[in-house]
Amino acid sequence: MSEPGPGTSGEARRPAPIIVNQGGQKLGERLAAHPSKPQVVAHPKGAPPWEIPPEADVLVTHQHLWARQAAPPPGWPFGLRFIQILTTGVELLPRWVLDGPIVACGRGIPAAPIAEFVLLSILAHEKNFEAIRIRAAQDWKPQWNEKPLGTLGGKVLGLAGYGALGRAIAARAEPFGMRILALRRGGGAVDPPAEPAPDFPSLVAEADHLVLVLPLTAETRHILDAAALARAKPSLHVVNVARGALVDDTALLAALDEGRIAAASLDVTEPEPLPEGHPFYAHPKVRLTPHISWSDATSAERLMGKVLANLDHYVRGEPIEDIVDPVRGY
Amino acid sequence: MSEPGPGTSGEARRPAPIIVNQGGQKLGERLAAHPSKPQVVAHPKGAPPWEIPPEADVLVTHQHLWARQAAPPPGWPFGLRFIQILTTGVELLPRWVLDGPIVACGRGIPAAPIAEFVLLSILAHEKNFEAIRIRAAQDWKPQWNEKPLGTLGGKVLGLAGYGALGRAIAARAEPFGMRILALRRGGGAVDPPAEPAPDFPSLVAEADHLVLVLPLTAETRHILDAAALARAKPSLHVVNVARGALVDDTALLAALDEGRIAAASLDVTEPEPLPEGHPFYAHPKVRLTPHISWSDATSAERLMGKVLANLDHYVRGEPIEDIVDPVRGY
Repeated sequence: MSEPGPGTSGEARRPAPIIVNQGGQKLGERLAAHPSKPQVVAHPKGAPPWEIPPEADVLVTHQHLWARQAAPPPGWPFGLRFIQILTTGVELLPRWVLDGPIVACGRGIPAAPIAEFVLLSILAHEKNFEAIRIRAAQDWKPQWNEKPLGTLGGKVLGLAGYGALGRAIAARAEPFGMRILALRRGGGAVDPPAEPAPDFPSLVAEADHLVLVLPLTAETRHILDAAALARAKPSLHVVNVARGALVDDTALLAALDEGRIAAASLDVTEPEPLPEGHPFYAHPKVRLTPHISWSDATSAERLMGKVLANLDHYVRGEPIEDIVDPVRGY
Repeated sequence: MSEPGPGTSGEARRPAPIIVNQGGQKLGERLAAHPSKPQVVAHPKGAPPWEIPPEADVLVTHQHLWARQAAPPPGWPFGLRFIQILTTGVELLPRWVLDGPIVACGRGIPAAPIAEFVLLSILAHEKNFEAIRIRAAQDWKPQWNEKPLGTLGGKVLGLAGYGALGRAIAARAEPFGMRILALRRGGGAVDPPAEPAPDFPSLVAEADHLVLVLPLTAETRHILDAAALARAKPSLHVVNVARGALVDDTALLAALDEGRIAAASLDVTEPEPLPEGHPFYAHPKVRLTPHISWSDATSAERLMGKVLANLDHYVRGEPIEDIVDPVRGY
């Protein structure tokens, strides 16, 4: 879309906005260079995130800053008209933040690196990747040929969640010949290559690889619990790249210890890090990584692009992208 | 295709064949059950592979049995009309075997498991897979967020070889957004999603991940040598899933040690296993696996299917599939 000329959208175009930036200096410089010539107010480090000038129009912030604030501060939301959150998840925001001005999030930004991480986790599990590495001639043994490695072809990939991330995973899994089942909680179509799963327990029951790519909400907290795991196949490999609290750890540990499921690759836990001595750390069937699946060299730049695009939309009076639904909570 | 009725292909149909089976008991049982009612002769274990009844029509054999025989035995090839080799590679067969009756191989059988293994190797390299695993709370460090993980998007996948295996890799790499360059030595088209590379040195020079899926012949022995590696990017990750002797180990080691390339994932070496104390075993940039990338639960069955299909072709006088070209040597 081209920018409308002067006078063509006088009503929609807002005056140069006042933006409170809680996203760091680099982002502040990019915001200040926006064509709308905004006034960018840097937030004092350590100050409560709601202590902002009452004349501010836009707030750019991290959700974790708001995590422990039960009630709104007096005067909230002041003059704010738009809040941009810098993560995909918004589960730490108090409900009163979502119920105020429009809140947008960074949905979809880490889809590609996380999808790569998921395929890596699946392949590594099937190929027994760490065990087959040899470090000496004596590691060459005839039994390598006796127990075949696993394959992805024909295996069932269960996607709990089918937003940008679920689709990115499905696209990469398809040419491996996996059967892809997806559960989309918010309604909406499940498109090929995925087939729709009727409900979460059915998805768990069918899956060889169950990938959790759900937002954390009151409804999804501990969604993978003892009842769901009771229906799993012994081959089940659980992959969590979303939020640790989607999983009931006690139930997962019991299923692993009793051989009712095969393995878990957990890039997220509740809390992070897990306390020293937690049984997941040394568990032979658990692979832990430090909430790193989103990481890539370009995600910060892509996030800035999304924030600036939403600023474009704001100043032009266009619809903001990736708005959070306060009721669904994502 | 349906089997021709009696009398419709009298000239093409051969009488019940005499098959010498050097591929083991299971295969022998499957061959004996073939509709042509063949006479299957089991080969005495340890006997030279060419010591076969002179009236045999078909020989099913492993290439390694023939590895040290310089000259043909007197009377070779006796009455043989068709030799089926049970591997993809035929580099251990003496030229006089290829110059005799039709020789077919197991081309393409391990394409899917090897393609999975290659994608796993590529993803594991980009994501620093072994290093990011945490085994204690103290392994959680802020620096996880400082050095981003690699991605496949935009990286150059160089396929040295574009037969069944190269295509299987390309199909799986495409949705990751890799740029795929392929070199097809035997001529023939390089189809999308791959683009043709003009020659091997150019392929090495462009690649972030160079995958060797070439047959081993006089022309390809040590094809990845010092001259080729001199043009590589510092990011180059070499993946060898074909034959160890495609690589000049001394040149590869020097390139790794001098930081001229990044890493090597070697599922094949020359010899196998490498002698105890070989520098690859403990090298921090080398990942060795025991020639296992082909392994899966169904490859033996698929190979038997191919052998039986070729027996169908033989008895009907139809063209045999996957014939080895004696001049190309694959």
